Amino acid sequence: MSHTPSHWFPDCISALSLSRNQRVWSIIVSLFGDMARHPEDRISGPVMSRIIEPIGIKPEATRVALHRLRNDGWIASEKQGRTSFYWLTPSGLTQTAAASPRIYARTTANVDSWHLVVLQPQSTAQRAAVEKPFLSQDYLLLAPGVFLGKGQPLKDTADAFIITGQPERIPNWLKQQIASPWQKHYQDLAIALTKVSRLLDQHGHIISPTQSATLRTLIVHNWRRTLLNHGDLPPMFYPGDWQGFICRDLVMDLLDRLQRPDLALLNNAI
Amino acid sequence: MSHTPSHWFPDCISALSLSRNQRVWSIIVSLFGDMARHPEDRISGPVMSRIIEPIGIKPEATRVALHRLRNDGWIASEKQGRTSFYWLTPSGLTQTAAASPRIYARTTANVDSWHLVVLQPQSTAQRAAVEKPFLSQDYLLLAPGVFLGKGQPLKDTADAFIITGQPERIPNWLKQQIASPWQKHYQDLAIALTKVSRLLDQHGHIISPTQSATLRTLIVHNWRRTLLNHGDLPPMFYPGDWQGFICRDLVMDLLDRLQRPDLALLNNAI
Repeated sequence: MSHTPSHWFPDCISALSLSRNQRVWSIIVSLFGDMARHPEDRISGPVMSRIIEPIGIKPEATRVALHRLRNDGWIASEKQGRTSFYWLTPSGLTQTAAASPRIYARTTANVDSWHLVVLQPQSTAQRAAVEKPFLSQDYLLLAPGVFLGKGQPLKDTADAFIITGQPERIPNWLKQQIASPWQKHYQDLAIALTKVSRLLDQHGHIISPTQSATLRTLIVHNWRRTLLNHGDLPPMFYPGDWQGFICRDLVMDLLDRLQRPDLALLNNAI
Repeated sequence: MSHTPSHWFPDCISALSLSRNQRVWSIIVSLFGDMARHPEDRISGPVMSRIIEPIGIKPEATRVALHRLRNDGWIASEKQGRTSFYWLTPSGLTQTAAASPRIYARTTANVDSWHLVVLQPQSTAQRAAVEKPFLSQDYLLLAPGVFLGKGQPLKDTADAFIITGQPERIPNWLKQQIASPWQKHYQDLAIALTKVSRLLDQHGHIISPTQSATLRTLIVHNWRRTLLNHGDLPPMFYPGDWQGFICRDLVMDLLDRLQRPDLALLNNAI
């Protein structure tokens, strides 16, 4: 390999810089979600800088992003002496808690019951208004006017035919329909994660807690941004070559290897 | 009422002559299904004539129909002296036994489990071949490429999405879709059956066994011809004004009033 040991850290960061237009506030959301998702957790300004500046984020961009997150009621802050401390607000904690199980799950949960909705056959234009409640991640579009949802149907399922039960078979065309918008994203992520895994193998030495935090943040960030963009379906809905399975395994393996640093130690180390 | 008592029988027959193009072989099938559906049951030629000739069927038409039914392996016959006797073949008995429960049921059976089939979204032309196995009475077409079937799916359900379970709600548009091709047929039948019921009320005297057999044959024939032309669905699938419910009640009431004659007595009476 052409990488010299001294380059391993920037090389990992470069491998994980998949999107050219990374939004800083979104990276900070990933950082808090991974490192400070409990009510007492706080991150000092200097610690935050040391974690995210290696990614290439300028201090000014961090200030703007923190301002926005405070305005949105997502984080709160307090100054102690010359140092600012940041933490998730109750609303930020709630949203983080809602997303975390899916992000950190090692397997996809099965679903006990399903319901399938069939709208009245009608023209695409007529259907537009009626199908609105079903055009979300909570429903999987099978065919025009045909939607699969988890659990019991909503009360306001319009004037639709509804059957509750269990899917018997997911045909290939549906697996492809579900997978195709995301396969490329996950494929790129799998390549990046594999590269990071190899760089860590080659490095073999001690990784500092801040380095660990930087890499964890980037890994969780990339994983979360694709994962939460599509519905959460049990394995039977995906094709055999579903890159999402591969990515999940790689993410979990890397998070196991890159230990989550102790926040209090990090904050005090300054 | 304008009917004099002496006309009650031809008036009943005329009320029940709903189709101008009654096929004689089909009326004979109805007659055997109602009067001679057990392996030992036999109907003599003269008894058959006495039952169906009042309907306006000519002896020559009966001969042609019996010839056809024998050729189709549906009935068998044997001459004893100068009299021919007719009975259902094993195949005729089997087909009769298959149809009888639905024809004579006083209520519609509920269905324990259902499956819904969603074909791959495709053009009408492409779908034509794939949807063939579902274009039968065993499946209810909900929307293009979406079919509801009873029990477990067939093994050869092509490359379809399948969910098994229970329908939660039958919307009005689907009830109308199910009912509309048959409402007029049942409405006409309900009018005819009501007329017969009134004529029997007015008559009030003894009805001969052959008269009873003639009327039963016509009632079962008209009922069967509409009933068996569409799928068998539980009551929840029909609109509140479903004429099929009304007809079933009228048919059962008339069959209770017009006793099924004893075949042996009829045959020996000649």
